[in-house]
Amino acid sequence: MKLATLRLPGGRTAAARVEGEEAVELPVADVGALLARSDWRETAASDGTRHRLSEVDLDAVVPAPGKIVCVGLNYRNHILEMGRDLPEYPTLFAKYPEALIGPSDDIVLPKVSDAIDWEAELAVVVGTKVRSADRATAEAAIAGYSVLNDVTVRDYQYRTKQWLQGKTFEATTPFGPYLVTPDEFAVDAEIVTEVDGEVMQSSNVKDLVFDPADLVAYISEIVTLNPGDVIATGTPGGVGHARKPPRYLQAGSKMVTRIGGLGELVNIAKEPS
Amino acid sequence: MKLATLRLPGGRTAAARVEGEEAVELPVADVGALLARSDWRETAASDGTRHRLSEVDLDAVVPAPGKIVCVGLNYRNHILEMGRDLPEYPTLFAKYPEALIGPSDDIVLPKVSDAIDWEAELAVVVGTKVRSADRATAEAAIAGYSVLNDVTVRDYQYRTKQWLQGKTFEATTPFGPYLVTPDEFAVDAEIVTEVDGEVMQSSNVKDLVFDPADLVAYISEIVTLNPGDVIATGTPGGVGHARKPPRYLQAGSKMVTRIGGLGELVNIAKEPS
Repeated sequence: MKLATLRLPGGRTAAARVEGEEAVELPVADVGALLARSDWRETAASDGTRHRLSEVDLDAVVPAPGKIVCVGLNYRNHILEMGRDLPEYPTLFAKYPEALIGPSDDIVLPKVSDAIDWEAELAVVVGTKVRSADRATAEAAIAGYSVLNDVTVRDYQYRTKQWLQGKTFEATTPFGPYLVTPDEFAVDAEIVTEVDGEVMQSSNVKDLVFDPADLVAYISEIVTLNPGDVIATGTPGGVGHARKPPRYLQAGSKMVTRIGGLGELVNIAKEPS
Repeated sequence: MKLATLRLPGGRTAAARVEGEEAVELPVADVGALLARSDWRETAASDGTRHRLSEVDLDAVVPAPGKIVCVGLNYRNHILEMGRDLPEYPTLFAKYPEALIGPSDDIVLPKVSDAIDWEAELAVVVGTKVRSADRATAEAAIAGYSVLNDVTVRDYQYRTKQWLQGKTFEATTPFGPYLVTPDEFAVDAEIVTEVDGEVMQSSNVKDLVFDPADLVAYISEIVTLNPGDVIATGTPGGVGHARKPPRYLQAGSKMVTRIGGLGELVNIAKEPS
């Protein structure tokens, strides 16, 4: 099943089930509110107003997650090519929900920086409340997968040793277009970022050191994961900051972030008005 | 004005105005919901059922903030005594709301660690939505002040270079007892942690390198701050991890965290049941 959050006339939003070229409206405000229902699988299968996908605007698939947990240094090839050892524990940091934008929204370039970089990531969306989960329970708690670009303000990221401030700039992080349930997505798919048509990142999500079930289990040892919580699982090599010379998003840059089977985010970088 | 969040029979909560030994119930579920109202100052002045403070249980003063932004390395004397230079920018990291507990609740000692440490902090609660605020706007956006102990799981904090995982263990972070509005609190007050009657941290909140208005202004350059958002402004010297030998909370430890004029948190560390 594929789910999305639609922006509808009058400023309201609605969760929807995607069927081919149609989005079937569901009786809840967004995919986060859907997942908060214990009967979400039944509700997601219900009938409702049909919209042509090509005619509706999509919001971030979960517009306001309770938690966004981001993972650093999680692609094997990238770690090894940097000459580092594989990590024993996942590196975790946060992003606040105000950073999120929809899959076709403009990325608002922060006025205070010129070093805005891309980080394509597989996003895991939690569907069941879990604490101290073993691997099987963790796996069963995954509602589905999506695409997120952890757009990063590099100079702020490295102003201090803690990355948060470079990771949570307002309206910078596209997330969507869909949540695809695990029965329709295997964690073996190409992950790509293109900027202005040029491939910048290209890898496979099966190269993750800590896979989605590992991450759900590990994080749930620390804190309860709730329905709608999001884990951004880390990015492969090819970010702009590591290039010589460095490359960053400019006003007008078109960034496409794609994971095979999950769809793509297409975002234009814009100066704030 | 002093505000609190009461836990009332039937599992409900209510915001309250504290008057001497009484808490006057307000028609909103908690102090976070109160601050979300544009007329919160009028609502906070309204009359309601009176409870004897000594007979009610207090929840975290804002039980579920949209954002908790924590600050590291922010006490001048402590930085200088460590032989470091004063920082140019604040170090920011996050804590998720699931970490919070009430001012008299037990601290749940994580099963996975024996290195649980204290960090007394002045908490700033935001009362007005702000983005890219100058210092005067930032100052006016502060709803009030409270006490928070950023209880930290040191081994998890240092498992990787990002501190989040040691900072956000479930039910570890007492926050309250009150929100005290700026007209009743000057940022010049003693801040103390005692463990089993022994003073572990003792400093003055006026020693902050980045003061509350600086922090609101700085963070608002990155992301919108909303009513109910919390900034934990950092801790002075005297944490258990820096002692020789290190000292940590044990099952049964009584931790008292106090800021002059803001009241105190009294928490017993307990093994999980």
